[in-house]
Amino acid sequence: MTRRFEFEKLGQDGKARLGVIHTPRGDIRTPAFMPVGTAATVKAMMPESVASTGADILLGNTYHLMLRPTAERIDRLGGLHRFMNWQKPILTDSGGFQVMSLAQLRKLTEEGVTFKSHIDGSKHTLTPERSMEIQRLLGSDIVMCFDECPALPADRDRIAESMRLSMRWAQRSRDAFGDRPGHALFGIQQGGLERDFREESAAALKQIGFDGYAVGGLAVGEGQEAMFDCLDYAPDMLPEDKPRYLMGVGKPDDIVGAVARGIDMMDCVLPTRSGRTGQVFTRHGVVNIKNARHADDPRPLDEHCSCPACRNYSRAYLHHVFRAQEMISGMLLTWHNLQYYQDLMQGMRDAIAAGTFDDFQRDFHAQRAEGDIEPL
Amino acid sequence: MTRRFEFEKLGQDGKARLGVIHTPRGDIRTPAFMPVGTAATVKAMMPESVASTGADILLGNTYHLMLRPTAERIDRLGGLHRFMNWQKPILTDSGGFQVMSLAQLRKLTEEGVTFKSHIDGSKHTLTPERSMEIQRLLGSDIVMCFDECPALPADRDRIAESMRLSMRWAQRSRDAFGDRPGHALFGIQQGGLERDFREESAAALKQIGFDGYAVGGLAVGEGQEAMFDCLDYAPDMLPEDKPRYLMGVGKPDDIVGAVARGIDMMDCVLPTRSGRTGQVFTRHGVVNIKNARHADDPRPLDEHCSCPACRNYSRAYLHHVFRAQEMISGMLLTWHNLQYYQDLMQGMRDAIAAGTFDDFQRDFHAQRAEGDIEPL
Repeated sequence: MTRRFEFEKLGQDGKARLGVIHTPRGDIRTPAFMPVGTAATVKAMMPESVASTGADILLGNTYHLMLRPTAERIDRLGGLHRFMNWQKPILTDSGGFQVMSLAQLRKLTEEGVTFKSHIDGSKHTLTPERSMEIQRLLGSDIVMCFDECPALPADRDRIAESMRLSMRWAQRSRDAFGDRPGHALFGIQQGGLERDFREESAAALKQIGFDGYAVGGLAVGEGQEAMFDCLDYAPDMLPEDKPRYLMGVGKPDDIVGAVARGIDMMDCVLPTRSGRTGQVFTRHGVVNIKNARHADDPRPLDEHCSCPACRNYSRAYLHHVFRAQEMISGMLLTWHNLQYYQDLMQGMRDAIAAGTFDDFQRDFHAQRAEGDIEPL
Repeated sequence: MTRRFEFEKLGQDGKARLGVIHTPRGDIRTPAFMPVGTAATVKAMMPESVASTGADILLGNTYHLMLRPTAERIDRLGGLHRFMNWQKPILTDSGGFQVMSLAQLRKLTEEGVTFKSHIDGSKHTLTPERSMEIQRLLGSDIVMCFDECPALPADRDRIAESMRLSMRWAQRSRDAFGDRPGHALFGIQQGGLERDFREESAAALKQIGFDGYAVGGLAVGEGQEAMFDCLDYAPDMLPEDKPRYLMGVGKPDDIVGAVARGIDMMDCVLPTRSGRTGQVFTRHGVVNIKNARHADDPRPLDEHCSCPACRNYSRAYLHHVFRAQEMISGMLLTWHNLQYYQDLMQGMRDAIAAGTFDDFQRDFHAQRAEGDIEPL
């Protein structure tokens, strides 16, 4: 196992890239989907179950962890991997995005952002330097630059101002991160849906130099068409030989479209959150398990899926335990959704390797268009 | 594997009995603790995890299952074992006790009891005959007679009247159950804390003849001392060559005391319910994981326990996920509690086999008296 962080590109089909990120904690096969483990747990899952779905890496949320149980406590306890019993790589976000979406009484300055905790109202400050410190204390393998990002739509002045602040923070993040062999720091491209700003941001990041590059500021309300328009050019502005990470995306068709446009890594709460609300992803689209049509249905959610929900239970059972608000409902449906997402990534990796990614995309959309199996 | 239901007594130490119940779905080692799977799930647990703790049998609740998803639906789907993915034996209660504790607008007659569902207010009737039918539809391996039981304290007239009604219902249950090879019907002794009524009830049940005998009407508010006083004589009134089941018990020290008095089987929601409220059972007594003393504690709940909560996580982590109301808290603590209960049963079985049950009891109480490990 390597002691270095290194991206190896193994193949390409159109713009879709096949690769592997070597890290001291193990390889990350790309395109990769990262399940979200916000508060040191992927909700409703045991970590060994997450690994069994094929996940090579998790995402942890700096904002949540700095508030509870705190980065200093996790550090004292041996770091986030040991704390949450996940020995594979962990990527942590910078906290910036979630301060803006969750915290109260935010105040943004050149220095950073002060805010009150949504948990207990306590006052905190995040700066590029503090974010780097927190992510170091957590023991994150892939650290994200501290950035700021406006909700879309926003006017060009606001987008430019925010992007340029984020680029200054990117330099401060780089300086504060220092030299940490085996650990990676990713820059985050901003610029909204403005091509010239995306170009300016990419140039600034490349000038600084990072181990990987994220496309930030998307999936914030602009819709899939606008996002894809931006992804038609934004990833191409980033270095060919480094991983490209699209933050906070997304639905299965978002993910396939992003990979088709040259994205290597993604994360989203959708498979886990949906698992707790009874929304299930299958090859044939979305199934709402609370629907009465499933009450007497002895068939599995997806006969081709290898997860425990599909191997061991009927739709009728999954419907019953959802209606009865039993914890096993969230446990099984989350497991299924994560399995679906990882199977989707494996299918794309196989297709890119075989040079059949166009066929893969066509089949993917055709199966979804068929819709769920007919009621009995 | 036998096709018959058969109790084999393997040893005895004092009044404590070691045995095995052979059933077509597998052996049940006694003394046995049965985790409760009320609504076709042991809350917060995968069934394979329940089995991994050493549980040979689960309890299912007729009252809950008849209301949702209904016994007829479970029957159409292949029975409760298949529905909930548990292939080992299942014991179902008769529904009588929970109608009295949960349902609304109950009306009790010689025929049975009518009530309104606590879920949707719908009207239902349970009789000995209907209870037998529901338990047959569920596919239960051990069926309990339909009975009625007053909360204690109650006056002697009320206790006698209730006990005699339950004995008439026991005969009707026996008649309705019929001849079902491989399936067992257990009678339930009533009579409160009145020795003469316990004697009368035992005589009535033996006259009818059952595959096993429960001690009912205890653990309903009388306290441990009164319960043990009753258990000093009540089990002795039941046939030596059949399993004896103490319903709804209990705390770890209740269980040890009951085994010492000749009980072979027990069930209780305590390990599972406590797992969801942060109350943990260990050899050293009860630990409340929400207590701030655990926030920085890197040690496991119990260094000698083999469950995932103890093998893979610190008290600090368990404290954190409980405070953060993460589902993994209930999942891990429930698993631990069930492991503790099953380890306790295995310890008692080993001690009875070795003829050292008195030593076992002394050590059990001595370790609990020590209390939890000192804070760091």
